[in-house]
Amino acid sequence: MSSSERIYNFSAGPSMLPLPVLQQAAEEMSNYRGSGMSVMEMSHRSKVYIDIFDETKADFKRLLKVPDSHDILFMQGGATLQFSAVPMNLIGRTGKADYAVTGNFSDLAMKEAEKYGEINIPCSSADKNHSYIPSQEDIKVSADASYFHYCANNTIYGTEWKYIPETGSIPLACDMSSNILSKPFDVSKYGVIYAGAQKNMGPAGVAVVIIDKALAGSEIALTPKLLSYQVMIDSDSMHNTPACYTIYIIGLVLKWLDAQGGVEGMEKIKTEKAKILYDVLDDSKMFTGCAEKEARSDMNVTFRSLSEELDDLFVKEATSAGFDNLKGHRVAGGMRASIYNAMPTEGVEALAKFMREFEAKNL
Amino acid sequence: MSSSERIYNFSAGPSMLPLPVLQQAAEEMSNYRGSGMSVMEMSHRSKVYIDIFDETKADFKRLLKVPDSHDILFMQGGATLQFSAVPMNLIGRTGKADYAVTGNFSDLAMKEAEKYGEINIPCSSADKNHSYIPSQEDIKVSADASYFHYCANNTIYGTEWKYIPETGSIPLACDMSSNILSKPFDVSKYGVIYAGAQKNMGPAGVAVVIIDKALAGSEIALTPKLLSYQVMIDSDSMHNTPACYTIYIIGLVLKWLDAQGGVEGMEKIKTEKAKILYDVLDDSKMFTGCAEKEARSDMNVTFRSLSEELDDLFVKEATSAGFDNLKGHRVAGGMRASIYNAMPTEGVEALAKFMREFEAKNL
Repeated sequence: MSSSERIYNFSAGPSMLPLPVLQQAAEEMSNYRGSGMSVMEMSHRSKVYIDIFDETKADFKRLLKVPDSHDILFMQGGATLQFSAVPMNLIGRTGKADYAVTGNFSDLAMKEAEKYGEINIPCSSADKNHSYIPSQEDIKVSADASYFHYCANNTIYGTEWKYIPETGSIPLACDMSSNILSKPFDVSKYGVIYAGAQKNMGPAGVAVVIIDKALAGSEIALTPKLLSYQVMIDSDSMHNTPACYTIYIIGLVLKWLDAQGGVEGMEKIKTEKAKILYDVLDDSKMFTGCAEKEARSDMNVTFRSLSEELDDLFVKEATSAGFDNLKGHRVAGGMRASIYNAMPTEGVEALAKFMREFEAKNL
Repeated sequence: MSSSERIYNFSAGPSMLPLPVLQQAAEEMSNYRGSGMSVMEMSHRSKVYIDIFDETKADFKRLLKVPDSHDILFMQGGATLQFSAVPMNLIGRTGKADYAVTGNFSDLAMKEAEKYGEINIPCSSADKNHSYIPSQEDIKVSADASYFHYCANNTIYGTEWKYIPETGSIPLACDMSSNILSKPFDVSKYGVIYAGAQKNMGPAGVAVVIIDKALAGSEIALTPKLLSYQVMIDSDSMHNTPACYTIYIIGLVLKWLDAQGGVEGMEKIKTEKAKILYDVLDDSKMFTGCAEKEARSDMNVTFRSLSEELDDLFVKEATSAGFDNLKGHRVAGGMRASIYNAMPTEGVEALAKFMREFEAKNL
């Protein structure tokens, strides 16, 4: 591979960004559009930066049709810090919350929330190694929960919620780190949505939070000021210096997304991409998908071959062929191809071809 | 100004970065050294990224001579989130802490700490609008404080501690956001040091924390996991995805700093730069420094002219001439020239010349 060649990076996150975004960022690095400075160097209070920030937020609002009842926050600390922020801000109403456990991160979120209140598990897929998503009928929502939390896409196990849980008057809190901006959905159904940027939106270091403003303002007394949704709403995410450059890159990604047809266009593309790989699995005598068919994630395709040795050989040969980061997460084993928005269809097609050839050669 | 020209940006933060750093970042943006990907796209668990991280941390340790008793953490949320993290981690021992108040940010840090324990103010410069730094004799350290907190450089008022306070057995906690890496100092004297990156180190979005490992591990029960120094030490700042790209830029800045002679070289340069501007103030019949001479900051030079109208005219004409962000902070008024490590000496010389000419024209 020559140094000018880019590889297909199937990392679960941080992960691929659109090449035009990277090229534009490089172009504007030392002098952003005649401002005489890099976006990295701009005061967050300056007009030139506020314009970038406002446009990014407006694009996000437009693309996801965020209603006026909700605000969009750019916070630091990724989704993991939101594991703490969500209960600190929202559990006060009843002291209790429901946490659906369908994978590693929803389990971590649940364990963190236990510090702040009484947690009930309304449903879990742990009985079958998180290979499926519970159905609506399986969910036992607590009448006195302050909110119901779930993780919309489980990166490690390769499962995805195909429906929005119905929880009556209990507000929905959702970790959408690994599938936000991959399809349209009704934001108004949620109390709070959060997503680390480093899968579908930009570099690591920002969590985008979409919060129903009516739910903010009752955080527990020991909440760090910077984790208060009310403080962040009141300051438009600028109580302190935000991660300015990361937000700028998210803005560039949103412009690119718009050019792909927005989240509606993205949904079409990501459905096609996922089908290419799942078709390989369904046709294969060597590879098996890890997730049950109806729960398969369009973002993370998890699979195994016939043995751990063959898994290792596959990963090794794939890496040499320019398909990087296909090894499954250590808790799940096997392989995982993460195919977020910025993974081009050619990359998925090339991997599918490689898998078929590997099978023909090694079966 | 042509679009290829960079301006002299005197912003208090985010602020200038060395041009060679920006140029290298642009060069490596789409394909970092033959890896086939951007640093923004790298898995934080990949060897290529871990190498970047480890080298950055090692350079930091070497440049500041951080002893083995202390660990270096890369956390998110800037210095403001450390205003919460410091008491959450350290106040447990006695439930009390001392906060020296010498400006806006030390006051904010103190107010945040009041959530977590009983706060004593061992010294304050509020009586003279924070124009000075209390002397060692003025400090009344509490015998039962868990730690003594101060802010080493006050960006808004333009004052800087010229000595390390002597507090006996009480650990020192220090916000060095605006003067870290500008001079050598004895890290071993501190229990914890923290600094937002966006002044002397890189883009906003990271706080570097230097923690005496012996002090970690006794955080209060409600501490968010990501704010626990012990968790961050145990995971080498990778409990979750760190702000990978920001850390990479910090790494490039450290290489640049090394080439300037390290913190010893930087001390010589910054002392010269500050003298150029303070000499203008001392010679002037129009401009007056806001800080008392012995407390003058080498990072933020604060001054006024003869009237608010003249201040406004100065800022306006300076901006047109390519000297940006010279308006003082809204709580202090007047002007402020922030001359962090990356501000070239030519920029300071050019501003000094502009000030003398402005005075000649308008006095």
